[in-house]
Amino acid sequence: MHGEQMAEDFPVVSVDSDAREAVELLASRRLPGLIVVETDGTPYSVLPASQVVRFLVPSYVQDDPSLARVIDESLADQVADKLSGVTVRKLLPREPAELPAVKHDDTVLEIAALMARLRCPLVVVLRDKEIIGAITASRLLELVIQPH
Amino acid sequence: MHGEQMAEDFPVVSVDSDAREAVELLASRRLPGLIVVETDGTPYSVLPASQVVRFLVPSYVQDDPSLARVIDESLADQVADKLSGVTVRKLLPREPAELPAVKHDDTVLEIAALMARLRCPLVVVLRDKEIIGAITASRLLELVIQPH
Repeated sequence: MHGEQMAEDFPVVSVDSDAREAVELLASRRLPGLIVVETDGTPYSVLPASQVVRFLVPSYVQDDPSLARVIDESLADQVADKLSGVTVRKLLPREPAELPAVKHDDTVLEIAALMARLRCPLVVVLRDKEIIGAITASRLLELVIQPH
Repeated sequence: MHGEQMAEDFPVVSVDSDAREAVELLASRRLPGLIVVETDGTPYSVLPASQVVRFLVPSYVQDDPSLARVIDESLADQVADKLSGVTVRKLLPREPAELPAVKHDDTVLEIAALMARLRCPLVVVLRDKEIIGAITASRLLELVIQPH
């Protein structure tokens, strides 16, 4: 079995796409993160859902978490404003993590070895530099725990 | 809205439970991780799926990833052996990350602030030290992006 057969569809967004739509996708499909590509389609990074939460929490609460208890303002009320007119690039951390990639003909063991080394929950699968899907750690476990 | 209303069921395993069953649960439900509790039910840690992959990759491949390409042995063949008679405790990293916990009456903003600070994708919700559920980052986003 190779990367090609292991890959599954996974939502991909561009750095230039609308932030609100990206967050709606994360939320409605309950994804742990999205794959982010450059404008030309090159894999760029992963946007973890926890990073979006970080973007949405007001900076005065990040600086002093005890304020969260006493502030009467709803987080939901601020979210629409904060995401309005913003691109996905703005949501990414200042130093985005590089997205791990494997090749379509890599073996299960090669892919597992990369996941193990980088402790990453998701890798993209490339054929000729094009994303053909992604493999999550739990997908890989599914494949090795039920041998074909 | 408080932690209580936000919490959802999430699989919980004990450190003493069977490793193979835990991995099957991760795989069949495609979970990014499991909540791990002490024998007495106290929240202990999260077992990420990527950590299980790490446990399963043979140490000689972890030491020299280039071996993964040339080794003819299937990962699936080794997995059954490696998980046999092993408990979840054995799968955890040597220094397991502390599981972030919130209280049943914490507000959305308090929970978001904790997730943001710890960059964690999942928190457990406690009432009187008992786990009543968990909140993922994408669940929180769902709740703040569709205001009630």
